[in-house]
Amino acid sequence: MEETSGAAKRNAPHDAAFLARAIAAGRGEVPADLVVRDVRLFSVIDGSTTATDIAIVGDRIVGTHGQYNGRAEIDGGGRIVVPGFIDTHLHVESSLVTPLEFDRCVLPRGVTTAICDPHEIANVLGVDGIRYFLEASERTVMDLRVNLSSCVPATAFETAGARLEIDDIAPLADHPKVIGLAEFMNFPGVLARDPQVLAKLAAFQDGHIDGHAPLLSGLDLNGYLAARIRTDHEATTAEEAREKLAKGMSILIREGSVSKDLDALAEVLTPDTASFVALCTDDRNPLDIAEEGHLDSMIRRLIAKGVRPQDAYRAASWSAATAFGLRDRGLVAPGWRADLVLLDDLETCAVASVIAGGRVADAAAFAVRPPLAPIGLASVHLRALSAADFRVEAGSANAHAVIGVVPGRIITEHLTRTLPQRDGAAVADPAGDIAKVAVVERHGRTGGIGRGFVAGFGLQRGAIASSVGHDSHNVCVVGADDASMATAVNRIAALQGGFVVADGDQVLAELALPLAGLMSLAPFEEVRHALEDLRGAARDLGCTLPEPFLQVAFLPLPVIPHLKITDKGLFDVDRFQLVEAGAASDG
Amino acid sequence: MEETSGAAKRNAPHDAAFLARAIAAGRGEVPADLVVRDVRLFSVIDGSTTATDIAIVGDRIVGTHGQYNGRAEIDGGGRIVVPGFIDTHLHVESSLVTPLEFDRCVLPRGVTTAICDPHEIANVLGVDGIRYFLEASERTVMDLRVNLSSCVPATAFETAGARLEIDDIAPLADHPKVIGLAEFMNFPGVLARDPQVLAKLAAFQDGHIDGHAPLLSGLDLNGYLAARIRTDHEATTAEEAREKLAKGMSILIREGSVSKDLDALAEVLTPDTASFVALCTDDRNPLDIAEEGHLDSMIRRLIAKGVRPQDAYRAASWSAATAFGLRDRGLVAPGWRADLVLLDDLETCAVASVIAGGRVADAAAFAVRPPLAPIGLASVHLRALSAADFRVEAGSANAHAVIGVVPGRIITEHLTRTLPQRDGAAVADPAGDIAKVAVVERHGRTGGIGRGFVAGFGLQRGAIASSVGHDSHNVCVVGADDASMATAVNRIAALQGGFVVADGDQVLAELALPLAGLMSLAPFEEVRHALEDLRGAARDLGCTLPEPFLQVAFLPLPVIPHLKITDKGLFDVDRFQLVEAGAASDG
Repeated sequence: MEETSGAAKRNAPHDAAFLARAIAAGRGEVPADLVVRDVRLFSVIDGSTTATDIAIVGDRIVGTHGQYNGRAEIDGGGRIVVPGFIDTHLHVESSLVTPLEFDRCVLPRGVTTAICDPHEIANVLGVDGIRYFLEASERTVMDLRVNLSSCVPATAFETAGARLEIDDIAPLADHPKVIGLAEFMNFPGVLARDPQVLAKLAAFQDGHIDGHAPLLSGLDLNGYLAARIRTDHEATTAEEAREKLAKGMSILIREGSVSKDLDALAEVLTPDTASFVALCTDDRNPLDIAEEGHLDSMIRRLIAKGVRPQDAYRAASWSAATAFGLRDRGLVAPGWRADLVLLDDLETCAVASVIAGGRVADAAAFAVRPPLAPIGLASVHLRALSAADFRVEAGSANAHAVIGVVPGRIITEHLTRTLPQRDGAAVADPAGDIAKVAVVERHGRTGGIGRGFVAGFGLQRGAIASSVGHDSHNVCVVGADDASMATAVNRIAALQGGFVVADGDQVLAELALPLAGLMSLAPFEEVRHALEDLRGAARDLGCTLPEPFLQVAFLPLPVIPHLKITDKGLFDVDRFQLVEAGAASDG
Repeated sequence: MEETSGAAKRNAPHDAAFLARAIAAGRGEVPADLVVRDVRLFSVIDGSTTATDIAIVGDRIVGTHGQYNGRAEIDGGGRIVVPGFIDTHLHVESSLVTPLEFDRCVLPRGVTTAICDPHEIANVLGVDGIRYFLEASERTVMDLRVNLSSCVPATAFETAGARLEIDDIAPLADHPKVIGLAEFMNFPGVLARDPQVLAKLAAFQDGHIDGHAPLLSGLDLNGYLAARIRTDHEATTAEEAREKLAKGMSILIREGSVSKDLDALAEVLTPDTASFVALCTDDRNPLDIAEEGHLDSMIRRLIAKGVRPQDAYRAASWSAATAFGLRDRGLVAPGWRADLVLLDDLETCAVASVIAGGRVADAAAFAVRPPLAPIGLASVHLRALSAADFRVEAGSANAHAVIGVVPGRIITEHLTRTLPQRDGAAVADPAGDIAKVAVVERHGRTGGIGRGFVAGFGLQRGAIASSVGHDSHNVCVVGADDASMATAVNRIAALQGGFVVADGDQVLAELALPLAGLMSLAPFEEVRHALEDLRGAARDLGCTLPEPFLQVAFLPLPVIPHLKITDKGLFDVDRFQLVEAGAASDG
């Protein structure tokens, strides 16, 4: 079927000739392009199941509730069919692979639409990073949709690779893959009516503005919503979700690798609310995808927790499409986009196969995607560092501010500790579980280094470093000694980005992330195995955290309480200002 | 509040200055434009009720679930608040008043959005008629939305005032009040892939295409839906509605003056389907609006039949908005359009007052609407007729095809009767309840007259005539004698359209409908009383039908089975051809 393969088909116009074929095939007058025979269609409307064939022309379903012949046919073997799943908010970068590799990895899990926010790459490469995702979206088998990153950089207290104002993103608003504005994290800016913020909000009043409003409630939430922000994935308690639902927001239940809200929010997904709840993964790493799954895992867990299957699957499809204005998808019915998932079992969401935009999501479909050249392969600008670069002068203060990590959470504690001194410098205290932490500016702007201390890694020796450091993605390194820290950071420079575990002058494990310092060029499986090696190497150094690289990567995020660190130094999130003394910065 | 009154406010841009005001008022930092104090907000999501104030800035709700101050305030007195109602499909012309008068009449019933199809005026005046409605939509207090008439004329077997092809309607597609394509009645044309039909469907693939598919089912329904037609108001049984729902259509339950489906379809509106069901009136005359109400009457009857209030009100608001892609309305929540209804009682839908786009729908709001000059005031082109114009030659046939009306239905029976003869002509037989019927072309094109006979009016003498004659709106007259018929039609010519009851050379009752021969220029109340007089006059002539003018107006509709009449003669709908002999035509 030459005319129905590859990108050409997905972009086929729905013109008169197409409609003539679709109508004729729907009536059974001519064979459809593709028929899935002998399935049981599960209704996300009422939970009923109907034995049927499903006929497809181009990217459109043209027949259900009947028997059909097709130029190509698949034996459904009596399997259950549900609408394709829609991930309503995620950062593909967190999968550490390219968008095309993400496609190959996640689409077979049933995710036929992914609404991504290319926020990480935008912080490194600016609009070029967003354009890269838009180009990828024209190649993926899944329908990759883009919300335009709304808050780059997140704060003025860090050095990012780019700054995006309304004039930068407005030219992209009309791209067919763009939905609207991505998670509007700068809620203080909304409430304060910051002119730059208002300009962005005003430009998207007729489109979609995705929200991000952790713990916002009462009149502050009303003020935020008055800007026509409609969706939110930051509710972490049922009470918070219920207030947001009552105030007209669609709630996107999030279950990522870092933030996990499914257990707390499952109870808000009821028969009454099912049209107003959707699902998302936000940040999900390759290990979790490989070991647990993606939206399929969320659906199975929701059902296991007592959610009716029709409500869980509706949230994953029609409700998600409705919340984001994707009017062509979300049901398996004639005239709707041919995104569907065949299941071996409904309650455990056991995905047998997937059809996306009318194409079977198999190896052949992935193989014919036009390639996309990586960008940002020289984004890590670092001079050669030595142990001396990480020295923290002891100064006159006895007490130092110390970041306290909380295993599995991105929130931190603001601790005060007395540190050992050596040669006039404050140093790490492995016996007391205090390591040194530094953030090294890597966009070639200041070369600044913010330094401090962190408790809770368990590190007894060596260092772990990452060029993924939310949201500005400077290099973040945690170490028991300065020499190991220098080795790790220098290796990241050599790799042009990545994860490194080092001890003294030895590199123990590494994963190169040369695409903007964020993504690997390797296949998903290799990345997964490298992560396992890195995790093991960190453990060998004494690290007690289950996911050390996730914890490192969020140490620099200055919009999450309480104490964080950027290339400009320790940052007191509660006071929203840099910590004046104690931890030096030359940035 | 100079800046918030009249059309200016409704069209106020949602720019940065507006957003600054909305956010500040939502937070309670500054007074809102309007606050409705002390109401109980009813949730169409979960049926809960919350005591609150409601704060509004411009046309947007900015605060709920809290207490507010406003530059203007209304005491809600503890009343229930629900979202404004959306009539998803109607022909304003059927109310017999102008769009602005319709606004004044129906908005106080809670209908804050009406999605109209200006199909009747389009058949008379073409695109100018649609433009008239678009101009009206910029003046009404309610949000009048327009779906573009898709099938003008309905068939080739009648003479309409206009013909609309894709090139005629495409230039209107981007008008901000246009939603998409109106009820696609020509389903045979869809299934046969008529090129003109496909051109229209192709042009609206990215917009909305409203359906009209009575009794269509199985593979034919699939073929129709493959054209991405998504909504339907023609289901008349629960079984038909359930098939359409299962195939992804939103079902618009219709309760008009002619077609009444609420009793049959109430059972399909359940907690599971409530997001996929909406309400509409299609054709509702002033008597029914005055005596029973509008969507308010549908809601109260649905609840009385056992539908949960939250499902009935959700269907009337959020589900309707969702089905037609109106993403700014359907909930009472911050950031949503300020369309809301205050109720004295939830279960009986007793409307106390209405706010539309942030404005109180009171006499003052209607008074400041900019006037709109009527159009089509000389659309009735008739020569002076005499009794001889209605003569039907007896010919050689003994048996004549006779239309059998069915009280309260637009479907007719195809009867065969032997008629009395006089002077070589076949004549009416009042004793046998057979009247003569004629359709006189009135668009100035052919002057043709189709003639025939009709059973079931009960008319003993005189004639009743109408310039409303679906869908081409030629003049239709039913009479016991030819002289009365001539009197009635000549009076319609003098009125430039209207309803007339005549006896001999006397006019007994009349209502002028000079706007395109379809709408009165008088206030709604006068039209209502004139209709009561007309009904009484027809009854005095022996007419036994409860709504004689509705029955007359649908006699010419050649897409409804079984036997109809156009200006070209009797029309056999089942064979879809004109009846050859027996009833003459000089058209």
